[in-house]
Amino acid sequence: MRRSPCITPLAALVALMLVIPDPLGAQQPNGLAAAHNYRDAHAAEIVRGYAELLGIPNVAGDSAGIARNAAYIRDHLRALGVAAELLTLPGASPVVLGRLAVPGATRTVALYAHYDGQPADSSAWTNGPWTPTLYTRAIDAGGVRRALPATGDAVDPEWRLYARSAGDDKAPITGLLTVLAAFRAAHVTPTTNVVFFFEGEEEAGSPHLAQYFEAYGDRLQGIDYWIFLDGPMHPSGRPTLDFGVRGVTGLAITVYGAVRPLHSGHYGNWAPVPGDMLAHLLASMKNDSGRVLIDGFYDSDAPLGAAERAALAKLPDFDASLERELGLARTEGAPATLAERLTLPSLTVRGLKSGNVGPLARNVIPPTAEAVLGIRLVQGNDPVHMQALVEAHIVRQGYHLVRDDPDMATRLRYPRIAKVVRFGGYPAARTSMDEPFVPGLVSAIRQASGVEPLIFPTLGGSLPLYLFTDRLHEPAVIVPVANYDDNQHGADENLRVGNLWYAVDLFAALLTMPDGAGR
Amino acid sequence: MRRSPCITPLAALVALMLVIPDPLGAQQPNGLAAAHNYRDAHAAEIVRGYAELLGIPNVAGDSAGIARNAAYIRDHLRALGVAAELLTLPGASPVVLGRLAVPGATRTVALYAHYDGQPADSSAWTNGPWTPTLYTRAIDAGGVRRALPATGDAVDPEWRLYARSAGDDKAPITGLLTVLAAFRAAHVTPTTNVVFFFEGEEEAGSPHLAQYFEAYGDRLQGIDYWIFLDGPMHPSGRPTLDFGVRGVTGLAITVYGAVRPLHSGHYGNWAPVPGDMLAHLLASMKNDSGRVLIDGFYDSDAPLGAAERAALAKLPDFDASLERELGLARTEGAPATLAERLTLPSLTVRGLKSGNVGPLARNVIPPTAEAVLGIRLVQGNDPVHMQALVEAHIVRQGYHLVRDDPDMATRLRYPRIAKVVRFGGYPAARTSMDEPFVPGLVSAIRQASGVEPLIFPTLGGSLPLYLFTDRLHEPAVIVPVANYDDNQHGADENLRVGNLWYAVDLFAALLTMPDGAGR
Repeated sequence: MRRSPCITPLAALVALMLVIPDPLGAQQPNGLAAAHNYRDAHAAEIVRGYAELLGIPNVAGDSAGIARNAAYIRDHLRALGVAAELLTLPGASPVVLGRLAVPGATRTVALYAHYDGQPADSSAWTNGPWTPTLYTRAIDAGGVRRALPATGDAVDPEWRLYARSAGDDKAPITGLLTVLAAFRAAHVTPTTNVVFFFEGEEEAGSPHLAQYFEAYGDRLQGIDYWIFLDGPMHPSGRPTLDFGVRGVTGLAITVYGAVRPLHSGHYGNWAPVPGDMLAHLLASMKNDSGRVLIDGFYDSDAPLGAAERAALAKLPDFDASLERELGLARTEGAPATLAERLTLPSLTVRGLKSGNVGPLARNVIPPTAEAVLGIRLVQGNDPVHMQALVEAHIVRQGYHLVRDDPDMATRLRYPRIAKVVRFGGYPAARTSMDEPFVPGLVSAIRQASGVEPLIFPTLGGSLPLYLFTDRLHEPAVIVPVANYDDNQHGADENLRVGNLWYAVDLFAALLTMPDGAGR
Repeated sequence: MRRSPCITPLAALVALMLVIPDPLGAQQPNGLAAAHNYRDAHAAEIVRGYAELLGIPNVAGDSAGIARNAAYIRDHLRALGVAAELLTLPGASPVVLGRLAVPGATRTVALYAHYDGQPADSSAWTNGPWTPTLYTRAIDAGGVRRALPATGDAVDPEWRLYARSAGDDKAPITGLLTVLAAFRAAHVTPTTNVVFFFEGEEEAGSPHLAQYFEAYGDRLQGIDYWIFLDGPMHPSGRPTLDFGVRGVTGLAITVYGAVRPLHSGHYGNWAPVPGDMLAHLLASMKNDSGRVLIDGFYDSDAPLGAAERAALAKLPDFDASLERELGLARTEGAPATLAERLTLPSLTVRGLKSGNVGPLARNVIPPTAEAVLGIRLVQGNDPVHMQALVEAHIVRQGYHLVRDDPDMATRLRYPRIAKVVRFGGYPAARTSMDEPFVPGLVSAIRQASGVEPLIFPTLGGSLPLYLFTDRLHEPAVIVPVANYDDNQHGADENLRVGNLWYAVDLFAALLTMPDGAGR
């Protein structure tokens, strides 16, 4: 299934025709128009420049490749007048930190992206993951391979550039470098101070982000808000603004029967059956319509504000088409929409195993049954507290809780034993929709795309956004720019060229927001 | 855990001292004494003979090895005066059929054993599966390898002979050949006509047994009862007599969520979770104490008779020690005993799978969850009817039933879809304890072993005994002779030499039962 994002050249033209009042009081060139002019005149060079950046291998463990990426970005920022440096910590990928200070500007926006990418199995790619290759359309939509454009060649926004990190998450970096070049060429002065924060190990789970904040927190003061430039846009192609993410944790539960597999004939009807025990345990946790029955599971949810509720009510109905795409005649919690359901914590069975199924199934009662449960958290939920609630529920079902496989004495003492292994995780984060910067940001997105953005109180997925909102105490929102069908994390990752243009336009609008448009 | 069977030389001596009245009216040598004398005088040759038979590879698919086994057994029977032949069918292992007609005898007992063995992974064996090797004890009890005994060497009943089929199921064959040789040497005339029926593909599921009965049924007329010489003895070492087996069938259930794995963050709390659906479905089938809740599941069970109930009541309590061995502080249906529970049909989860657990677990909602259910049947239960009851239950839980993975139209039409794949199987079989032959058979076992046998209305496991009881309409019971720790089906399968002596003694007693001891 592919759908074409609806950011059309026409919409861009409409945006181009808007007249933006001089933000600093003096008449100066329109930032969005400057970006348009520049990318019209330099389209081929921009695409070639993006291919150059994508050609540098960028898996977090590969320190040579990571260093080349970081140096490339720092050097390009510096060449465009940004005070850029590499922040380092032992054993960590460097952070590329840049600061663009605009005389007279009173607002500082921090832009986050990551320059590392997921590891790639080269054999699964049509071309290599670090051999950026241009196609006239998506490969699976019949796109044909073509050479990178020469200077002056017309560039089709439907072209796709294939490479690791094309969609996740180097497009914002090239987009920002392009805007800076456009502004320099057209003598546009931004209205906003900008902090560039480019991480190099997001795909490895951002293991040093908190440490970076501790070590370099002084350089991250005075930021009005953060914009996370990551993730794909909505499948409808509408520009998206997310005010939060869910947190994440989970646990693995193992229940025990006999010490060894038992012949299902010789012992069936007498020996406890771990698969049945686990079924009863899981069924007790959640009812048939998806409500979690664990005591207290919903008690710590922070309530949605009026703005969040209004945003949810304003969202168009995407659920019906999503259900058709996914083959679903029923959803949990219906008639609540997907967007509404994501404002609640969730408990899902990510994995089940007992004995074997298929050709390996044997005539036995397996000695154990195991479930891996995923928990997504909303604002207010503490990951460890939520795990403890699940464990308390298991105990209330008559189970003795252990952390390691039980020894014989434990087995003979307790009729029902469950081993629970807690996973790591982190809390949700949510930025209020009532923050003063919001109208200006929404207006900039509208201006860049020509359409009304979709506004979500929270993403369903998880990012360590809480480090920004709860450690740095700075608001943070997410504005994705990549096409939704970018194959992120998979083989043949790609960016639609039109989405790079959207990034350029978005940043041009952001950097020239009227100074009054919220801090 | 190893326990020593309690068939001691002392018990054998006690049996030896019994005086059996001349069954045919004329004084003749005592059959059991003849067997004892013969195995005392020829112990080393018997063990070497058994090793010779075990050395012939006997996996059902290996037609050359199978043919060698069948010819070996036929020829040895013939050499001992039995009218033996090979029954054949295209593509089937031959059946070795022998008939010993005793002038004047009015009773005919058929003895069943199988000469084929389970396939073997040679690499898992201490020696090869078809390299019979003698040890002074069980290997895992510290036994030491030793040469096969030379003629005249003393033979320790605790020795173990290791080879495929040592325990399952060639011991009865060598035991019978030995008794025939002993009777010939001591001029003992059996009191019973004997039919020898040695199958060559039991471990492959006896795929041609019904066909053999159709093609050669005329040769299997006039049999008073069948004795199945298969399986291990009770772990206590007490001789065992089983009057039936449970039948077996099963099914695989798959329930469906979305057409592809979904990100557990972006969709968790909205997309149906197959693991949860399956948990609810399985939990609805059986309560927490092991009672199956499927309508009609127990309705077709044939009631136990007074003799069966009395036999159950007489069984010593083995459950406590079994629970200790298996690490169980609880059993299904407690306080009912294992033996009692085996007289009911059972429903067990043999396998569960949804997504992955352990290191392969991913942050997804898997698209399916699957359970493999095993069903054991008792007398009166029809396999297909029992499967239909499970399916009707699934439908009552709101599921649409399919036989293949659902297409998109089906997915979009039905909120809950379950694919059910039915397995094959066959019904239970039970022979009444009130049959007239029973007292004589029990007496022969008691005589051979010196102890009171354990009598079970049914085994928990399954054998196609129904072909004998329901197709040939002849009673059938099971009398195992192998040590319970014979590693049958596994690597390092073995027979305790003392158990071969038990087999010899048992057959001597059986073949010289007083003619009045039941037909």
